[in-house]
Formats: sequence, structure tokens, C-alpha cells
Amino acid sequence: MKRNLGPVNALYPSLTTIIGAVVEGRANFSTVAHVGIMNHGQPQYLSFGINKSHHTGQGILEHREFSVCIPGEGLVVETDYVGLVSGRNTDKSRVFELFQGQLAHAPLITGCPVCMECRLARVVDFETHDVFIGEIVATHAEETVLYADGKIDITRVRPLLFDMASVKYWSLGPEVAPCWNVGKSLKAARSNGG
Amino acid sequence: MKRNLGPVNALYPSLTTIIGAVVEGRANFSTVAHVGIMNHGQPQYLSFGINKSHHTGQGILEHREFSVCIPGEGLVVETDYVGLVSGRNTDKSRVFELFQGQLAHAPLITGCPVCMECRLARVVDFETHDVFIGEIVATHAEETVLYADGKIDITRVRPLLFDMASVKYWSLGPEVAPCWNVGKSLKAARSNGG
Repeated sequence: MKRNLGPVNALYPSLTTIIGAVVEGRANFSTVAHVGIMNHGQPQYLSFGINKSHHTGQGILEHREFSVCIPGEGLVVETDYVGLVSGRNTDKSRVFELFQGQLAHAPLITGCPVCMECRLARVVDFETHDVFIGEIVATHAEETVLYADGKIDITRVRPLLFDMASVKYWSLGPEVAPCWNVGKSLKAARSNGG
Repeated sequence: MKRNLGPVNALYPSLTTIIGAVVEGRANFSTVAHVGIMNHGQPQYLSFGINKSHHTGQGILEHREFSVCIPGEGLVVETDYVGLVSGRNTDKSRVFELFQGQLAHAPLITGCPVCMECRLARVVDFETHDVFIGEIVATHAEETVLYADGKIDITRVRPLLFDMASVKYWSLGPEVAPCWNVGKSLKAARSNGG
């Protein structure tokens, strides 16, 4: 039996990221758990919406560059902290050790196992939010979280999965099944008129 | 030590959903694991991009309505199956038991613990993809996955988390920490000049 909850966003859990930008000359960071994937291909685009009053947005609009870093469970205190305080009245530039990639205004966090540098491609205007669409320029991953073929092993990233209803960060659990594979039995059965 | 992987989309794991639409008069479903959250507020918008050649997109453009259902682990075979075959040459209208919500062209899946009905609000044109932005009209959740206060308990939804690198569905693990809370210790320490 289902209950109609009204227009509730139920897209959880979502991946917790830290968005970085240079605002008023210094690195600023904000926790964002709703970064979307726009397409699959090259150029590869991602997106996220933030309230128009948000401090980080100013820096992104000014320099048209930003970073998206993925913290592991070990960085949960710092990740939560940069989501608790605003860059408007707090200097967050020294919370993390940083490194430089290809872009001048996309501050990257050494302690995050995966970091992406993005160039702003488009801004979609909503009532209260700006949705920033960025093109991924480079992705930097810690050697220790890579499979032998250079792909990222999420079990070693240990991402923080955010849920709005429980207001908690959750961990990744065990695998369930192979994708584009476990459904083949049903495909075969239905092809045979099953 | 970090390695530059090039412009790799590393936003995983992501929530696996089933997008539903009415195409050429019948319900069609497609597995999509990159539905984004555009804002927080009302109206509440979500988005997803699909290749312009995609069968589901035709129905969404025609009726300007679609559904986003969240399958649990028990539905992994059917979920994978509707991502394996195209509605262009396969009738997927009878894979799931369906129910009707408020919209006429947003087919909802009874077996999914959470289902959202959406009205198309905007289409953002990309090179190869259309990004559909929908306003959530109603969210239907199984009584058995709700907390006493009516919020959704994701541990009972048992969502399928998709990862592109391992090409697997993963489960939700245990909680890590409370959000907007675990960072307070660092806030206090830094306020005191720490």
C-alpha cells in the first residue's frame, strides 16, 4: 500500500562532494550532495544547483572554474564542517591541504581520493537557484584507490552517501549484482515468449 | 600520490532509478542512474540527460510527463533488464505491475518502494543529449518503508547503487555519522583559534 507524500524529492542516497572555487582571492569549499551527471561522452558534463545567495557561486561566476572533490569516510568531520559554515564569514582556505591541477581557480583537496577540475560551460537560471553545468577537464585519483587498469575502485574510495530524511552520511555496502548482465536471464525468458 | 586520469566522470556510486513514460500509446521504462537534484524547495526539480536517439525521450517530449521510480534490491533483475533492451523493438509495458497516480502519462511501478510523478518543466539541449528537467508533482512511497513521521527510511528501500567502473550494482552500507552535526567539533575548535 502506497502513501502520497506530496512532491518530495526522494533521490537518496546521493554522493557527497566538496565543491571548491576561488572567491575574493582565496579558496573556498562547500559540501554539495547533489551533483548530477548530464551525459555520457566527451565533453563530459556535470551539474549542480546552489542557491543564488551562495558564497561559492560568486567565485564560480567570476572565474568560470571550480572543483568537485570526493571525500572518503576518513574526512567526514572536515566535509561536514565546510557544509556548516559559510565562506562569507569564515576562511575555509586552510581546512584542507591543497594541490594545483591544470586550472588556476579550481582548488583541489589532497586528502580526497578523487578530485575533478571543471570549466563552467553553462548556467541554467531557476527561481532561487543557479544550476552550474561544468565540463570535466581532468580527474585526479589517488594511486591507492585505482584498479590495475586505472579505473577507480569505489570500495577503496569509501564515499560518504548523504540522505536527507535521516540527515546522515551512510557508507557503501556489498555488491548486489553485475550491471548489464543480471537482467539477461529475463531477456532470454521473454524472447522465448516467457 | 595522484594520477591524472583525464576528464573521467567519477560521480559514483549513483542511485539507480527507472524512468517511465508513455511512448506510442504504451508504457515504456528505462534504467537511468544519473538523475540529478536541481534545487531544494518548492517547486522541486530533478533532471536527467538521455541520448537524443533514446526511445523514452520521444514519449516525454510528446506528453511532457514522466515517472521516476526507485527499485529495491529485490527488483534487480527487472531493473537491469529494462536497461538492456530498447522500447523501440521490445514491449516493456508488462514487465511490471503498474498503478496510476495524478498524471495520465507517468506510469508508476507497484513493486518499487518509491515512485515520483513529474511534469516536464524544461529541456536543456546538449550536443548528443537532451537534459529533461521535471517538476515533482507527487511522490508515492510504500507504507513499509516509512518512518513514523512519514519520511522515507532508505535502509528499508534497499536502493541499488550503480558504479560505472566496476559495472555493478552495490547496496547501502551502515551509517557513518550525523550530517550538519559531526563537523560541529571542528567548528568549535576553529572558532577558538584552533
